[in-house]
Amino acid sequence: MSALPQPPDAETPITFDTHPDRYRHWRLAVEGAVATLSLDVREDGGLRPGYKLKLNSYDLGVDIELHDALNRIRFEHPAVRCVVITSAKDRMFCSGANIYMLGTSSHAWKVNFCKFTNETRNGMEDSSRHTGLRFLAAVNGTVAGGGYELALACDEILMIDDRSSTVSLPEVPLLGVLPGTGGLTRLTDKRHVRRDQADFFCSTTEGVRADRAKQWKLVDHTAKPQQFADAARTRAADLVASSTRSGSGAGVPLPPVDRRVTADGYRYRHVEVALDRAARTATLTVSAPEGQQPDSLDAIRTAGATWWPLAMARELDDAILMLRTNHLDSGLWVLKTRGNAAAVLATDAALTQHADDWFVAETIGLIRRTLARLDVTSRTLYAVVDEGSCFAGTLLELALAADRIYMLSLPDDATAAPRLTLSPLNFGRWPMVNGVSRIENRFCGAAAPVAAARAHIGEPLLAADADALGLVTFAPDDIDWSDEVRLAIEERASLSPDALTGLEASLRFTGPETMETRIFGRLSAWQNWIFNRPNAVGEHGALKVFGTGSKARFNWERV
Amino acid sequence: MSALPQPPDAETPITFDTHPDRYRHWRLAVEGAVATLSLDVREDGGLRPGYKLKLNSYDLGVDIELHDALNRIRFEHPAVRCVVITSAKDRMFCSGANIYMLGTSSHAWKVNFCKFTNETRNGMEDSSRHTGLRFLAAVNGTVAGGGYELALACDEILMIDDRSSTVSLPEVPLLGVLPGTGGLTRLTDKRHVRRDQADFFCSTTEGVRADRAKQWKLVDHTAKPQQFADAARTRAADLVASSTRSGSGAGVPLPPVDRRVTADGYRYRHVEVALDRAARTATLTVSAPEGQQPDSLDAIRTAGATWWPLAMARELDDAILMLRTNHLDSGLWVLKTRGNAAAVLATDAALTQHADDWFVAETIGLIRRTLARLDVTSRTLYAVVDEGSCFAGTLLELALAADRIYMLSLPDDATAAPRLTLSPLNFGRWPMVNGVSRIENRFCGAAAPVAAARAHIGEPLLAADADALGLVTFAPDDIDWSDEVRLAIEERASLSPDALTGLEASLRFTGPETMETRIFGRLSAWQNWIFNRPNAVGEHGALKVFGTGSKARFNWERV
Repeated sequence: MSALPQPPDAETPITFDTHPDRYRHWRLAVEGAVATLSLDVREDGGLRPGYKLKLNSYDLGVDIELHDALNRIRFEHPAVRCVVITSAKDRMFCSGANIYMLGTSSHAWKVNFCKFTNETRNGMEDSSRHTGLRFLAAVNGTVAGGGYELALACDEILMIDDRSSTVSLPEVPLLGVLPGTGGLTRLTDKRHVRRDQADFFCSTTEGVRADRAKQWKLVDHTAKPQQFADAARTRAADLVASSTRSGSGAGVPLPPVDRRVTADGYRYRHVEVALDRAARTATLTVSAPEGQQPDSLDAIRTAGATWWPLAMARELDDAILMLRTNHLDSGLWVLKTRGNAAAVLATDAALTQHADDWFVAETIGLIRRTLARLDVTSRTLYAVVDEGSCFAGTLLELALAADRIYMLSLPDDATAAPRLTLSPLNFGRWPMVNGVSRIENRFCGAAAPVAAARAHIGEPLLAADADALGLVTFAPDDIDWSDEVRLAIEERASLSPDALTGLEASLRFTGPETMETRIFGRLSAWQNWIFNRPNAVGEHGALKVFGTGSKARFNWERV
Repeated sequence: MSALPQPPDAETPITFDTHPDRYRHWRLAVEGAVATLSLDVREDGGLRPGYKLKLNSYDLGVDIELHDALNRIRFEHPAVRCVVITSAKDRMFCSGANIYMLGTSSHAWKVNFCKFTNETRNGMEDSSRHTGLRFLAAVNGTVAGGGYELALACDEILMIDDRSSTVSLPEVPLLGVLPGTGGLTRLTDKRHVRRDQADFFCSTTEGVRADRAKQWKLVDHTAKPQQFADAARTRAADLVASSTRSGSGAGVPLPPVDRRVTADGYRYRHVEVALDRAARTATLTVSAPEGQQPDSLDAIRTAGATWWPLAMARELDDAILMLRTNHLDSGLWVLKTRGNAAAVLATDAALTQHADDWFVAETIGLIRRTLARLDVTSRTLYAVVDEGSCFAGTLLELALAADRIYMLSLPDDATAAPRLTLSPLNFGRWPMVNGVSRIENRFCGAAAPVAAARAHIGEPLLAADADALGLVTFAPDDIDWSDEVRLAIEERASLSPDALTGLEASLRFTGPETMETRIFGRLSAWQNWIFNRPNAVGEHGALKVFGTGSKARFNWERV
């Protein structure tokens, strides 16, 4: 396909930086315990030229602002207990992802866009579950497709009963694709909509008005236009009352992430990205904190956004998003660490000690979601545990997220011999979206190797010990080390990118399935298949001809 | 793609009938409690011209024989407790699905072939779980790809340790596709292979010899060539000893299914298939038993293959396979029933009363697997409960498997008013592959509506009552009935076949995930995506150029 938006080139990378002052599509208003996010999409504000964002439809740019707004609420507005998501437009809440943008995008762009959208929405539920921040969708007009999928990610949906506004998931009949950013999965898994009613609902373009929507459990509450604002206030107040969020006072401002673009990558304060374009690889190096780290709440709050766990996670999150969006052919990421394990372990201790504090809890949340983003990144991840590395505690999660771990084996008495160090945080503090720790996931649910590893918490483990515990994949000695690692990278980078994506998506989630894994695995996989089929994206495919007046022409074979 | 094997035309439909006397690729030998299935693929015995089945590789024809052989063991050889799957070739157990067949097949053929292969293998585990028939893979030579996936479906794998035979899953590096018939899923879910070791194993072409295979849990036992036959006997004897299968004496012969091809479909004794080619639909009508039904074990055994539950299930299974393989564009199946509910309920009672008998247990198994086949069939399923219908007990499962249920509402005193009747068998006797009943699955795990339905077991429920219990989707009266059903069918048949496949695959499995749902959902969905990508099937795709001497050329973008 040849059309906008194309994968960006190095000259104009997509960045994820923004600020409420610069939002073009959302308005954030905070009043006491309630934050209101009003969607007011600027038609001519698309991220790329070539389409108009009519009817409060969205593209990646709209979602980048939502992602930013959510993080600002989390960190800058600790008193907020409930976020109300509503529309500033008349009679139109949100009509979903912009169809012309989808119809003219490359396959990779569509898939990447849907993944980020899914991550942002799953992040809302993550905040609700872990820190008690509640979400109300105040659906004050018609809501369709991805707009309804956004509402589905909220704790509650209040819908206006004005006899004309409807809710619909018309992707299948209208566009020949799925409600693929969580819609199908949340209907059954979250809202327990009966499967035949979900089938009917998802195969009609007409949509359902408020009364039937409530009857079918598509929404929780309805209100007449005159009562809608009051009802929204009441529902928000109830959600505030049910929230367990504990913040108050002044928030922690989030300054822009300090990213410097270099000739071969990016450089942040604690994260460095080095691209090897010829080899189609990127090396991400995360550094441990330096110097004395705060251990009291006061000192942590004083450090604010410069506190290492928060600063590192923001940088890593940004690096992942930048690489995923702007460097499609960097198919293998080498994950490295540098610095002092003791400093990481001290920070781990501080995270644990103050986990009940709202700011620390939000920092933990950001790390949790950043690691989860790594888990669903469609790039091979190799952790390389070499001299000077610092895979300890929270930083060890990077290795546990990787597809393979290579660890240099040096004689026991070599001071340069790299070590891995487990901390208590590796055993439950950083759940994957399937609800289990990465170390449990690694051993496919077997209890014995997890217990064996737990017995070594705090011990710096040399390669042989780590290998014996099953914590590394290969532990070559210094004679073989550089050749073995180099060959492993070269071989991997020579394989079919698509086959690797399927392989990694299958092997990374060995544990229980959850709504989130079903969204990223089953639903996204089917959607990606459909996104690649002529019936959707061919010359006469449904997504291509939408709005042209032509009717889609299908190959009728059922596959 | 244009190449053999193409979807068959009406002149030369693929059928699934065969008999051990006519096997070309397998040899079945039964000795006491052990059946041995030896794979000895005839190179020139491909189902379609255009490829040679070298190195004990297989195509659909090979799997059709395996499917037949398993059913013969189940019904004709009740004394068998363990099936040994081995090779009759020297040093080559099985090299997997034939690559040239895959490389020249249409997308639909590949997907359909993989589904049948998956069903047959899952059926082995189904028999092991439910009737105690155990399986030993006696891997007496090199095993690769789909060959290893077949071994993975066995209860145990014994591998020859001859210093040259290897086990491998080389699909990713060699062909740019996945080990997609259960391989990836069984590695982690069944054998608990550590995910990084699975990653390495699946991305190397070289394979692993017996010692490392055992160390990595890829196989259970190894034996030197001289000891291999003894070891296989010993392992089989142990599996016989651990089997709970209870059959003995003479089996029940399975005569060919009595299928007559008509101008517009097929007609069996209890099942009729009517194709409407213009509308791209098929109507499957299943009839209840007629006349006095056997209720004693003696009478049931005397009836043998003509016993209605067995005969009906064999016919329905055949009809599903015929339609799926030969009528790709019949995108919607209307499921109807006819006959006397009391006769079905009486048969249900007999199934329950004698469930411990080996023959009844095998009949239950065949029904269970046939219904499971329906669940993963990529066709829209509408159940139409009209006058003369007989959706009672086991036949009601057809409706519960459907995407929607339309039920005609007539006045209460109309004798012609159709009724639904629940039997105890709807509440656990027919688990889906996710382990829950279709009625539990229907209500997304909510307990109350299942309990409410259970209170009405045995009552003939009119449309209004069935509707109130949530058992039907729509219950139009006779004024609206024919228009509403006709429109629903027409509308559905007009939608994108691909989008419907994704929709149905997502909504049909609302309950827990199991290894089987992960194989059919996540793994198959990713594989189908890859099967559609130029990196696999394009002119320079890995699957296309295999064996030509050319190297695959990839688009390096990671999606």
